[in-house]
Amino acid sequence: MGYSIQEGKRENVMYSFTNDYSEGAHPLLLDALLKTNLEQTEGYGLDIYSAKASSQIKSLIKNATADIHYLVGGTQTNATFMAAALRPYQAVISVDTGHINVHEAGAVEAMGHKVITCPHKDGKITIERIREVIRVHIDEHMVQPKMVYISQTTELGTAYTTNEIKQLYTYCQENDLYLFIDGARLGSALVMEGYPSLEQIARCCDAFYIGGTKMGALIGECLVIINDTLKPDFRYHMKQRGAMLAKGRVIGIQFLTLFTNNLYFEIGKHQNLMADTLRYGIAQLGYTFYVETNTNQVFPILPNHIITKLQEAFSFIVMDSIDSDNSYIRLVTSWATKREYIDKFIYILKKSGKDTSS
Amino acid sequence: MGYSIQEGKRENVMYSFTNDYSEGAHPLLLDALLKTNLEQTEGYGLDIYSAKASSQIKSLIKNATADIHYLVGGTQTNATFMAAALRPYQAVISVDTGHINVHEAGAVEAMGHKVITCPHKDGKITIERIREVIRVHIDEHMVQPKMVYISQTTELGTAYTTNEIKQLYTYCQENDLYLFIDGARLGSALVMEGYPSLEQIARCCDAFYIGGTKMGALIGECLVIINDTLKPDFRYHMKQRGAMLAKGRVIGIQFLTLFTNNLYFEIGKHQNLMADTLRYGIAQLGYTFYVETNTNQVFPILPNHIITKLQEAFSFIVMDSIDSDNSYIRLVTSWATKREYIDKFIYILKKSGKDTSS
Amino acid sequence: MGYSIQEGKRENVMYSFTNDYSEGAHPLLLDALLKTNLEQTEGYGLDIYSAKASSQIKSLIKNATADIHYLVGGTQTNATFMAAALRPYQAVISVDTGHINVHEAGAVEAMGHKVITCPHKDGKITIERIREVIRVHIDEHMVQPKMVYISQTTELGTAYTTNEIKQLYTYCQENDLYLFIDGARLGSALVMEGYPSLEQIARCCDAFYIGGTKMGALIGECLVIINDTLKPDFRYHMKQRGAMLAKGRVIGIQFLTLFTNNLYFEIGKHQNLMADTLRYGIAQLGYTFYVETNTNQVFPILPNHIITKLQEAFSFIVMDSIDSDNSYIRLVTSWATKREYIDKFIYILKKSGKDTSS
Amino acid sequence: MGYSIQEGKRENVMYSFTNDYSEGAHPLLLDALLKTNLEQTEGYGLDIYSAKASSQIKSLIKNATADIHYLVGGTQTNATFMAAALRPYQAVISVDTGHINVHEAGAVEAMGHKVITCPHKDGKITIERIREVIRVHIDEHMVQPKMVYISQTTELGTAYTTNEIKQLYTYCQENDLYLFIDGARLGSALVMEGYPSLEQIARCCDAFYIGGTKMGALIGECLVIINDTLKPDFRYHMKQRGAMLAKGRVIGIQFLTLFTNNLYFEIGKHQNLMADTLRYGIAQLGYTFYVETNTNQVFPILPNHIITKLQEAFSFIVMDSIDSDNSYIRLVTSWATKREYIDKFIYILKKSGKDTSS
Repeated sequence: MGYSIQEGKRENVMYSFTNDYSEGAHPLLLDALLKTNLEQTEGYGLDIYSAKASSQIKSLIKNATADIHYLVGGTQTNATFMAAALRPYQAVISVDTGHINVHEAGAVEAMGHKVITCPHKDGKITIERIREVIRVHIDEHMVQPKMVYISQTTELGTAYTTNEIKQLYTYCQENDLYLFIDGARLGSALVMEGYPSLEQIARCCDAFYIGGTKMGALIGECLVIINDTLKPDFRYHMKQRGAMLAKGRVIGIQFLTLFTNNLYFEIGKHQNLMADTLRYGIAQLGYTFYVETNTNQVFPILPNHIITKLQEAFSFIVMDSIDSDNSYIRLVTSWATKREYIDKFIYILKKSGKDTSS
Repeated sequence: MGYSIQEGKRENVMYSFTNDYSEGAHPLLLDALLKTNLEQTEGYGLDIYSAKASSQIKSLIKNATADIHYLVGGTQTNATFMAAALRPYQAVISVDTGHINVHEAGAVEAMGHKVITCPHKDGKITIERIREVIRVHIDEHMVQPKMVYISQTTELGTAYTTNEIKQLYTYCQENDLYLFIDGARLGSALVMEGYPSLEQIARCCDAFYIGGTKMGALIGECLVIINDTLKPDFRYHMKQRGAMLAKGRVIGIQFLTLFTNNLYFEIGKHQNLMADTLRYGIAQLGYTFYVETNTNQVFPILPNHIITKLQEAFSFIVMDSIDSDNSYIRLVTSWATKREYIDKFIYILKKSGKDTSS
Repeated sequence: MGYSIQEGKRENVMYSFTNDYSEGAHPLLLDALLKTNLEQTEGYGLDIYSAKASSQIKSLIKNATADIHYLVGGTQTNATFMAAALRPYQAVISVDTGHINVHEAGAVEAMGHKVITCPHKDGKITIERIREVIRVHIDEHMVQPKMVYISQTTELGTAYTTNEIKQLYTYCQENDLYLFIDGARLGSALVMEGYPSLEQIARCCDAFYIGGTKMGALIGECLVIINDTLKPDFRYHMKQRGAMLAKGRVIGIQFLTLFTNNLYFEIGKHQNLMADTLRYGIAQLGYTFYVETNTNQVFPILPNHIITKLQEAFSFIVMDSIDSDNSYIRLVTSWATKREYIDKFIYILKKSGKDTSS
Repeated sequence: MGYSIQEGKRENVMYSFTNDYSEGAHPLLLDALLKTNLEQTEGYGLDIYSAKASSQIKSLIKNATADIHYLVGGTQTNATFMAAALRPYQAVISVDTGHINVHEAGAVEAMGHKVITCPHKDGKITIERIREVIRVHIDEHMVQPKMVYISQTTELGTAYTTNEIKQLYTYCQENDLYLFIDGARLGSALVMEGYPSLEQIARCCDAFYIGGTKMGALIGECLVIINDTLKPDFRYHMKQRGAMLAKGRVIGIQFLTLFTNNLYFEIGKHQNLMADTLRYGIAQLGYTFYVETNTNQVFPILPNHIITKLQEAFSFIVMDSIDSDNSYIRLVTSWATKREYIDKFIYILKKSGKDTSS
């Protein structure tokens, strides 16, 4: 057993824009875990750090009676919450591009619930689409639509404005539907003008979660339940679904740090700034985008041969082809994204384009 | 937001023998997370560290074709594995004291499977009890018993000897039953003479998991699938059940560290030694035990008034009353247990006894 | 295709005491199906006959607001009702001999719910056993007991007295538990002195079902929901679980007939009388019973060689061995049981005994 | 309790074209139930009549090793089969108009499986649409498509030709997909030139069910499993899902009768003939159809004021509006449909049209 962990090296010389969870945790979070490591605390999320983090968040959203729970990951949070909120015959409405519909391996259905899909508009749901779903679900031969699921920011990197969220929530309330917001990448939207703040989010939905994993945490998502009817016995649901950590403090400490000295918002600003730099550089070179975004996801349309060139130095997801010569790719920035690699990306993009035109 | 995480203090002046997950992680594990923190890796357990940890473990068990997966917690690991291994009408046999039967909030049933219980013998299952279950489950009006679940070490702190495990596995093979071993506290048994080594465990079951959370990790359990028929598509099950971490490396790095330089075994030895010291001290004072154990859980029977006295300085679980004057308690040691607190515990126990007798 | 159904013959020359569903339907029920066969009605239980049957039953139980639904079979009724009444983490308490625990292939667990078992007393549950279950289920690491399931009559042929049911229900109400009564063989208990009438049953539980299949119907069970909180949207549950018949009238017409001119009670009396005749004849010959019953199930203990003799002319279930020479069997009577076969059974039993003693 | 069932009258003076389950059973089926009523048989589908029906069907499909099971209704049959055939992470592909997607209250999802939908072409699925589903489901973050579900005839009254079914099955086999055929209204397609016979159906899928309820039975669907890998332990699934009747013979006897003297096919012919008569009459009056059909469902587009007129004498489903003045309706014929009511319908339609044009 001569193996030593120190031998661990960057497994890949390429720089990755593949996602916002390629690195570990923001250093301040690791630091907080280190400082508190030898203290003894209660298990299963009943520790003092989780309590402090919850107080901090309740104060930020100006809601003293919200219920706050810390779960491990996004798929788990969505599925556990829906299992708790919905009766067996009730369904959740989502755009077809929604994370629960595409990328959670059927976790919601595994809980027994149908995901009713409707076409998206730039990744967002519209009231018209929800209304059509309600119109055709009329009796007990069909599932009963009971929840609207949206992501802020969306899977296509767009975000709901404050007005859009307000209107959606009003519609949901009028139609006896829960509004649930998947905030895996919430931080990116919280720091933009015209988009809902954490307090506004909390006023405009029945429950939402504040993403940790994609916002600099090692693990962890923070579920905030606003609607009183959804609160009872939620810890039973968590335990049953394997969503309750013995060392729950690991998440509590990280969220406490994220909401100390505005770190969560600073991370949001950084990743948006890095994405803006990418967007500006790409647009300057005359390329367009599959969808216009202002958050930490960028979807440029590029010639296939240039994509091949870029892949020599960078890893990223090639989403789909646009036509026989062009495809669109996804670039994601994070708390850890370094400006120098963006400059390098733009440089190679520029150079590849020139090489081609000559 | 003047709050600072540095204000975080020991929430409790009492020393806790409540469980083996009161502290954070073994310092070497945190150190490894720190050293690798800024590296970019593949997500969802496909990183180089998880791969190295798996190689290490496969080498230890001398089984190059085992499938190894890293899940977050014990309840999740048990439930996800059973959902993958069992068809809807199949059931798992467990002693009534089994973790899946008592302390997982019905997670196995939430996956649709019955837990058939039988009485335990010092926390262990016997072949006679399994045989009786098989005898009475005869047709499609009943569930079909298909798996035997045991814990090593058991919920009562006992452990199966090498012979017992071998006989159990032989019986299971002869009767078309899977044998699954919950190793949440496996480390404690691995280091004892006459008890199965990691390699022997791997030879005597269809699947088992190597506990991380209760053995010094922040989070994480390592599932080892031996039986080829149980291997296909397991990652689909993990994803669907919310058991696949985006930053999967967090668990991989910790298990790589645990299985570097024998750390996992050293932790097992330490916690057993601390428990032995407790056992010896308590026995010396003339007290007996609810069940005889040689692992990191100790169950002394003590007079209620002495328990009250001990609770002024220590936290631990009072299990149940034995008679009107006496109860039995549970003391658990861990990688972090300090000798000085054991001495203090014995000192108070001795002093309380004298006070009483006078 | 020269085959003709008229060739269908008694598949077996032996007379069967195996169960109470060996024949088709009581002739009056078939007659009612025939008379109404060509009428057009609404589907899915919304027909006029189902409505009339429900009115009749509501009038009998003197409860105008009960919700009444017609389901196809017992396992389906139990599982569908429990899926509707329980939240995912809630469990049902049953004696170990309970039908849901033994003979429904894990249908309740397939709905996600644990069946917590406790030892029975002559097939019945006791308040002491329920109290012990409540005592040990204390937090979210365990399932939450929320329902008590009993069968009237029980799987061992006994029945709860009026007092026993009243006390059970009072205990359940005080402890926030639903009481659900599986009435697959309810008719047998309804006609006995000292045992609850249909009206008393309806006053002493949250829901119950009136068995049809074992009481002379081709198919069908009638679920009566008393507790208002369990009523909403139950038809959604039925449809989702495949428990809603397109030709729902098939069950409605049969229950209307069963509750016209006291037919249901007459059937109960007949099957009890037949069973009494068996019991008397067997006891007269000096044999004892595994459990004392007064309903349509009889469990005599007989020498194995006599059982073999009886099996030449009768089919019945040999339950289990009592010792190396004796076993206990189950004899079940029904609406169709004929006196002559009982006489024949006693005759052979008497003759076999003599042959032996000589 | 002076109520007498004989008072039961046609609840409705209108004639119903609403569906094909408005009446009871075909008289020959009731007759067979009556003739066998007092015989004692084995329970749970193990009776001699079910066995004979299965022999008959195996002979018809020229497949001696098919497994045949009798379930109660269509939703139950679909959901039970899918629960048996699919692993938890596997999904079924259906057109958006598929019965499992719209009209089964989420029964498939309640079993834990996603229904992946694709747009239909006249109610039918196309290989191109399936291919696109396969193309985008690439890894364990998504469900795994494993089954294609089609209905013969479809929910829009169309039917797959022999060639279409053959091509579909070939594609499914090449892509490791099961093909399952919901034959709730199979009889209508079996008797048409150019459409697959029962034997051809059985050669071109992994499993299918022969509808009973909508083809003249009181209750019951006959599931035929062709693919050997889907056969083991299916009775466990049936029992667990409440799909196994105690008096299983009730279904067996009906299917034996349906497949004696070609009754099933005669019923198919009758309902098609009645529908053809409707189609011809409606077309003669110059009206068009929402979708062209040749089976027992007819979807004419009619002016709203004429629909109102027709509703005075007939009940049927108004599907949806076509424009502000016109809607399309559904007319369904069955074994019981009488020519005189079709003539009356056409007469009123003709008269209403004239009244309007004047």
